[in-house]
Amino acid sequence: MSCLPSLITNTAEEGYKVAIKLSRMAVKMTQPDDASREKMRPDYANNADSLIQVSLVVATNFNTVAKANNYWRD
Amino acid sequence: MSCLPSLITNTAEEGYKVAIKLSRMAVKMTQPDDASREKMRPDYANNADSLIQVSLVVATNFNTVAKANNYWRD
Amino acid sequence: MSCLPSLITNTAEEGYKVAIKLSRMAVKMTQPDDASREKMRPDYANNADSLIQVSLVVATNFNTVAKANNYWRD
Amino acid sequence: MSCLPSLITNTAEEGYKVAIKLSRMAVKMTQPDDASREKMRPDYANNADSLIQVSLVVATNFNTVAKANNYWRD
Amino acid sequence: MSCLPSLITNTAEEGYKVAIKLSRMAVKMTQPDDASREKMRPDYANNADSLIQVSLVVATNFNTVAKANNYWRD
Amino acid sequence: MSCLPSLITNTAEEGYKVAIKLSRMAVKMTQPDDASREKMRPDYANNADSLIQVSLVVATNFNTVAKANNYWRD
Repeated sequence: MSCLPSLITNTAEEGYKVAIKLSRMAVKMTQPDDASREKMRPDYANNADSLIQVSLVVATNFNTVAKANNYWRD
Repeated sequence: MSCLPSLITNTAEEGYKVAIKLSRMAVKMTQPDDASREKMRPDYANNADSLIQVSLVVATNFNTVAKANNYWRD
Repeated sequence: MSCLPSLITNTAEEGYKVAIKLSRMAVKMTQPDDASREKMRPDYANNADSLIQVSLVVATNFNTVAKANNYWRD
Repeated sequence: MSCLPSLITNTAEEGYKVAIKLSRMAVKMTQPDDASREKMRPDYANNADSLIQVSLVVATNFNTVAKANNYWRD
Repeated sequence: MSCLPSLITNTAEEGYKVAIKLSRMAVKMTQPDDASREKMRPDYANNADSLIQVSLVVATNFNTVAKANNYWRD
Repeated sequence: MSCLPSLITNTAEEGYKVAIKLSRMAVKMTQPDDASREKMRPDYANNADSLIQVSLVVATNFNTVAKANNYWRD
């Protein structure tokens, strides 16, 4: 598994990147072959519905990361 | 990445705009080409099911932003 | 954007209406043309799967609004 | 709108019924015509994927109702 | 409705079973006919996308049950 | 059911593995036949939309596990 760093970040923008990373990790663990994943890229990168679902996954992970960081309020 | 400002806003309406921004950021990071995204616009803007899913993504992000702002109760 | 009032309401039923409003706002912001949205209405209002997804969006927004109101327990 | 009672119930089972009611309310508000909804019933009641999505909506609403009731722990 | 016991369990594994039960309850209440449900079983039990959605429903319910039990930390 | 260990882990990375395990458990319980599941593997491992939904399930479970561990902040 690609190494998952701490959920704690300095800014919301860094936290968003962790949410992206978390979203990709599950895909990599389910389809570990790099070439297979790369081959699917045009399928979702040019499909509006796929991109909307990608955004839903990131939103779910960002919900977790933002809470972990107390919404960077402190 | 388009710059993500603070999650903290003065009003619920501003918070909703941040939720929209968060929803678009994941799409832009997955499909960074502006022309490719613009080309897909009619696909989802005229499709009821796509628009419903867009609203689900925004709802998920607004859940995060609203909590970050203590629901603008303070 | 159609104006978003406070998330705070007197009753659960009013809160549910705010959840409906939040769900519609994302659709309106993505497809601002009234005629285009109206044209899609039969597509989702007569399709069971679309209506179920509409209900998922409202449920997600109601989760936020209900929490904002401390579940109208006070 | 069909009247929404309090989210607070005596038991988890009653709370589950409120979650079902919340799930149906959004459908009724989007398609208020009783005959139209009844006509769609076989579409989702005999379709595994539709039933799974129904269950997702109820799960999302039950998450809200259960929290409102402090999980009936008190 | 099949009887819903308490959400409180002794272990995470028992809690997971309650999440499964909650997920099935909504399906049973929407399609109460046992034979109709049984007939659909091959449709989802041999379809990867259906099984993934089943898992999403269970995950949503487990989120509720786990919180109800304070994550079995006590 | 494959045995579910504690939700409590030492690191976020271990917690992510528990989220993966939780996601797989619901699938195994719905389709207990190992050969049937193995046969479906190419269906989802080579389909972008399936992989995105897998990631949504894991994100939902990771939300639970991360909270259980107080986001590994302690």
